[in-house]
Amino acid sequence: MIIALKKGIRREEQDHLISWLESYGVRIHLSEGEYQTVVGLVGDTTRIDTDLISGLDIVESVTRISEPFKKANRKFHPEDSVIRITEAVAFGKGEFQLIAGPCSVESEAQVETIARAVKKSGAGVLRGGAFKPRTSPYDFQGLHEEGIRILTEVRKRVGLPIITEIMDIGHLPYFQDVDIIQVGARNMQNFELLKELGKTDKPILLKRGLANTIKELLMSAEYIMSGGNERVILCERGIRTYETYTRNTLDLSAVAVLHELSHLPVVVDPSHATGAARYVRPMALAAAACGADGLMIEVHNDPPHALCDGPQSLTPEQFDEVASAVRRVREAL
Amino acid sequence: MIIALKKGIRREEQDHLISWLESYGVRIHLSEGEYQTVVGLVGDTTRIDTDLISGLDIVESVTRISEPFKKANRKFHPEDSVIRITEAVAFGKGEFQLIAGPCSVESEAQVETIARAVKKSGAGVLRGGAFKPRTSPYDFQGLHEEGIRILTEVRKRVGLPIITEIMDIGHLPYFQDVDIIQVGARNMQNFELLKELGKTDKPILLKRGLANTIKELLMSAEYIMSGGNERVILCERGIRTYETYTRNTLDLSAVAVLHELSHLPVVVDPSHATGAARYVRPMALAAAACGADGLMIEVHNDPPHALCDGPQSLTPEQFDEVASAVRRVREAL
Amino acid sequence: MIIALKKGIRREEQDHLISWLESYGVRIHLSEGEYQTVVGLVGDTTRIDTDLISGLDIVESVTRISEPFKKANRKFHPEDSVIRITEAVAFGKGEFQLIAGPCSVESEAQVETIARAVKKSGAGVLRGGAFKPRTSPYDFQGLHEEGIRILTEVRKRVGLPIITEIMDIGHLPYFQDVDIIQVGARNMQNFELLKELGKTDKPILLKRGLANTIKELLMSAEYIMSGGNERVILCERGIRTYETYTRNTLDLSAVAVLHELSHLPVVVDPSHATGAARYVRPMALAAAACGADGLMIEVHNDPPHALCDGPQSLTPEQFDEVASAVRRVREAL
Amino acid sequence: MIIALKKGIRREEQDHLISWLESYGVRIHLSEGEYQTVVGLVGDTTRIDTDLISGLDIVESVTRISEPFKKANRKFHPEDSVIRITEAVAFGKGEFQLIAGPCSVESEAQVETIARAVKKSGAGVLRGGAFKPRTSPYDFQGLHEEGIRILTEVRKRVGLPIITEIMDIGHLPYFQDVDIIQVGARNMQNFELLKELGKTDKPILLKRGLANTIKELLMSAEYIMSGGNERVILCERGIRTYETYTRNTLDLSAVAVLHELSHLPVVVDPSHATGAARYVRPMALAAAACGADGLMIEVHNDPPHALCDGPQSLTPEQFDEVASAVRRVREAL
Repeated sequence: MIIALKKGIRREEQDHLISWLESYGVRIHLSEGEYQTVVGLVGDTTRIDTDLISGLDIVESVTRISEPFKKANRKFHPEDSVIRITEAVAFGKGEFQLIAGPCSVESEAQVETIARAVKKSGAGVLRGGAFKPRTSPYDFQGLHEEGIRILTEVRKRVGLPIITEIMDIGHLPYFQDVDIIQVGARNMQNFELLKELGKTDKPILLKRGLANTIKELLMSAEYIMSGGNERVILCERGIRTYETYTRNTLDLSAVAVLHELSHLPVVVDPSHATGAARYVRPMALAAAACGADGLMIEVHNDPPHALCDGPQSLTPEQFDEVASAVRRVREAL
Repeated sequence: MIIALKKGIRREEQDHLISWLESYGVRIHLSEGEYQTVVGLVGDTTRIDTDLISGLDIVESVTRISEPFKKANRKFHPEDSVIRITEAVAFGKGEFQLIAGPCSVESEAQVETIARAVKKSGAGVLRGGAFKPRTSPYDFQGLHEEGIRILTEVRKRVGLPIITEIMDIGHLPYFQDVDIIQVGARNMQNFELLKELGKTDKPILLKRGLANTIKELLMSAEYIMSGGNERVILCERGIRTYETYTRNTLDLSAVAVLHELSHLPVVVDPSHATGAARYVRPMALAAAACGADGLMIEVHNDPPHALCDGPQSLTPEQFDEVASAVRRVREAL
Repeated sequence: MIIALKKGIRREEQDHLISWLESYGVRIHLSEGEYQTVVGLVGDTTRIDTDLISGLDIVESVTRISEPFKKANRKFHPEDSVIRITEAVAFGKGEFQLIAGPCSVESEAQVETIARAVKKSGAGVLRGGAFKPRTSPYDFQGLHEEGIRILTEVRKRVGLPIITEIMDIGHLPYFQDVDIIQVGARNMQNFELLKELGKTDKPILLKRGLANTIKELLMSAEYIMSGGNERVILCERGIRTYETYTRNTLDLSAVAVLHELSHLPVVVDPSHATGAARYVRPMALAAAACGADGLMIEVHNDPPHALCDGPQSLTPEQFDEVASAVRRVREAL
Repeated sequence: MIIALKKGIRREEQDHLISWLESYGVRIHLSEGEYQTVVGLVGDTTRIDTDLISGLDIVESVTRISEPFKKANRKFHPEDSVIRITEAVAFGKGEFQLIAGPCSVESEAQVETIARAVKKSGAGVLRGGAFKPRTSPYDFQGLHEEGIRILTEVRKRVGLPIITEIMDIGHLPYFQDVDIIQVGARNMQNFELLKELGKTDKPILLKRGLANTIKELLMSAEYIMSGGNERVILCERGIRTYETYTRNTLDLSAVAVLHELSHLPVVVDPSHATGAARYVRPMALAAAACGADGLMIEVHNDPPHALCDGPQSLTPEQFDEVASAVRRVREAL
């Protein structure tokens, strides 16, 4: 249920209403925006008399929310959320970010080379996998702790905040110095992991699962937010369909739908979506054109010899060209 | 198999080679482009000695083609095809077209109103359904012959070439005066229909089926082309997936993949793909940004009262704004 | 809307009610079964006063039907339908049939050999393709008219009724002597074809489309039935999913769902569903166990040399073993 | 790579070969069955000379394995594996088991009532959820530790071994007294969890993910087995497709395919697959008919009031009837 309050009311009146609502056992979620204040109620609102509340002087309107997600719901928070990472870097509401870097952290030299190049091309965040989700137990699993150390080292020297994927709650201590924690597609419904991340204060980039619906993505965001951490960035990375020519099917309408249903920023990963470097450019441009708040693109200085996902990685030169074309598209709109 | 010939050879040498190849029982498909001439062989090429041919003076290279589609294959026809509709209107190779109009032809007044508006907004082709594919036998099936008459009448007065869908071979006589014949998603593998359309000389817009792969789409194009009609325009209109929030899932990577595999123009239908007017704009922009050769958008002057698919139709004003944003995106790229 | 009438009412009362209902412009569909008579109304029933009708002496109950399919709906026809093919062969309501034969009719000798073998194993209907739907225009398309002639010839000598697939309305004259006309998966939504078949009096076996829902299958059955031909047998043959290990994914729950929603018989094609001979036996047994009214199985005397779909064909010996195991499963239930 | 050894060779010869192979840095996986001994090599086998090995007296054949899964691969272990739970209860190779119980553990009285009933009906294992994966953070999450205590208490009194789902590695200590640990569909690719479970010696029931392929399921089994725990039972529970009439689409061909590719037992969960009690019976019978090694069925004494998944739960009476029909089907085959 959400209660929109009239403009210009006195703070005591607002507080009084909130106390009374809380006596019903619901949790209050307050969204004080430029143009209106919305009081969101989370919990069992069935005993609350909507007619009574509508009749109050200070109340503009009362609406029961049917969607199972509340905190992630735009009706609870009408304005776009801005998730700030550093002074210079934020996601959402006009702020567009390029996240770039190698699939896996292989060595300090490799990461630094790529970081310097993508920064020059305009990337705001450096990505790199330290804990890799590999479908086979016999594949390279990542450098783990050492991988994160390398990322923080490169951040010191190059100046880009870092994002890297967490595979398990048990690894959380290693992520203390990471700027954005990524939850991979296969962990989108790892509810225990989401609950723990909800207790941290780190920005979380939440990837849509291989075959999860838009609503399930929002419910997973809800898991994190209901834990107290509201800094969630959503990521569309392609869904599983019958088409086998591309690795996944990039669902760009999800960008439009998510922006409608939720106030959270939405980025797109065209690398994992298509699985092929030559399709990254067109899909990156398409994503920018339909309003994505950012892109996450894999970049490697030597794709044929990458330890993982080489075929979908761009070279720094290719990334530079894509970044510049993306800027042109955004300027046109 | 394709044989690339060196530049500047004499015509007799080319003809001599072609006769010799034909003696093997294969059909020859010649593509004489600006930069190279490619001789495509269709049929059983197993007895042909590729080493022998490679050794010929006039031959640059010989490649066996593994894909089951030949005529639609870019290897057979390296340059983009241009499908010309009228002097002013063509698809492919830099020519971008907006196809717009109502889902169904309802009356002459309705069609003319919409036609004038979309023409002003830059549309090059008018669409309208006369024969409607309805999932229920109890729904409005279209005005049939009368619908086509209305479209041709409006073309006379407004000046836009027309495209309309054919449901069955038996109706072909009614389509004599139609500029582009559309094959709907549910008929993409109506092989008998495709074979017949292959015998006409009309441009055919071939929609990808609800759950057909990119390769199946190209094989269906191959059916039409192998009949003798090479004027095929492909159309991505969303595929069926588990996601139910949108009517279909628009697969924009198909635009990139089709451009790579084939020389045929590729347009996108964001109306049927999303099923909702409010998502048409972002998807149209995304399609333009990733290189589509055109868009097909449903426009109705009174969507709430449209006889079919009202929820996904744009008003003429909305269409005008989208057309103009699409132009800006294309200019930026 | 359906009106259930009390038992034992007089015919004039029933006729009187029916005339009155027809005056509203709806079509009446009467189902006089053993245990009850149900009057089904098809068309616009919004003006009909359900309270008024419920109040009538002869009326048991009135229910508005929300499903878009009526004639195919079990609420309109509570008892299982029996579709009789010959004196000896019928589908539905306890009658279980095995349909067997080669994918394609290749020669009279081949078809006769297979027909004799499968008849001995208990098959009630012979299948064989004369008009083949091939994804590539370069593949064997079937013997057409000659193929049907061969089937009728073999029927004369062996005594099995025949079923074969129709690809296009234009071929209907060739099917005059065919016992059951099959509509293939790719034609499930060829609405013009369905409408024409609705005007014949031939039993139609309607295959579920590659990616069509159960409701769409019933709507396609509705197309045929609303034309006047109520002899429709439904067929589940696997649906398209992301899994590539099997050719399609056999959806056996469709058997249970279709039996619940409709009164029409439901058969299963495990050959096309799995695409591999070694999976046909387990899937045939599973289909029999969950209540299918029959099976359609491809049988070839020399699978490695079959002109199409050899990999999924059983030899006559294998078919014999499967038929006998299927009988045992049915006896157990 | 697998090396099949001739029958009747001397143990020293076998040991000698194995030492030599190990010197290449591969891990040896020995399968000594009734009819043959197979030496499976896991790791980088590229330097091993297959011709040399084939030439050895004691070697029957050498085959390179292309599948990425080895330990789970039937080529490595030709005979069916038997996973023994207690003296009386095992899965695989002719042993068929019914796993039954409520979706959630709600109270001791509830679980005991259900346990006694299903045991009488022939169930060999009791299921009950203590840690529930709920899509919404606002839904009942299960009784956790208390839930497991209740299950062990009921096991003491009724005598059925217990299976319950683990959501996170951190909970592993609570599972010490559980007989079978279940990995839910959403955790099928929680690789860290799988690696940890690979270090235990508990039988693991591994559910196929919502949209995971058969090969991915086997790779997840491989994760567990490569950790040292080879007691894995696979479970098909329906996959996500475009069809919305059923909760998921039960893919019974997976039973046949998994039995072919792997030696591990395969059970089927028709409750979660269909989401509706009335479809459980036909799907359970179908699963038994196609060779499943067991079934997992939700049973609740009062489905309308179940705390979760009531609609798909059978009453004890319904379960009794299904168990008995399943027995009849198995006897017939």
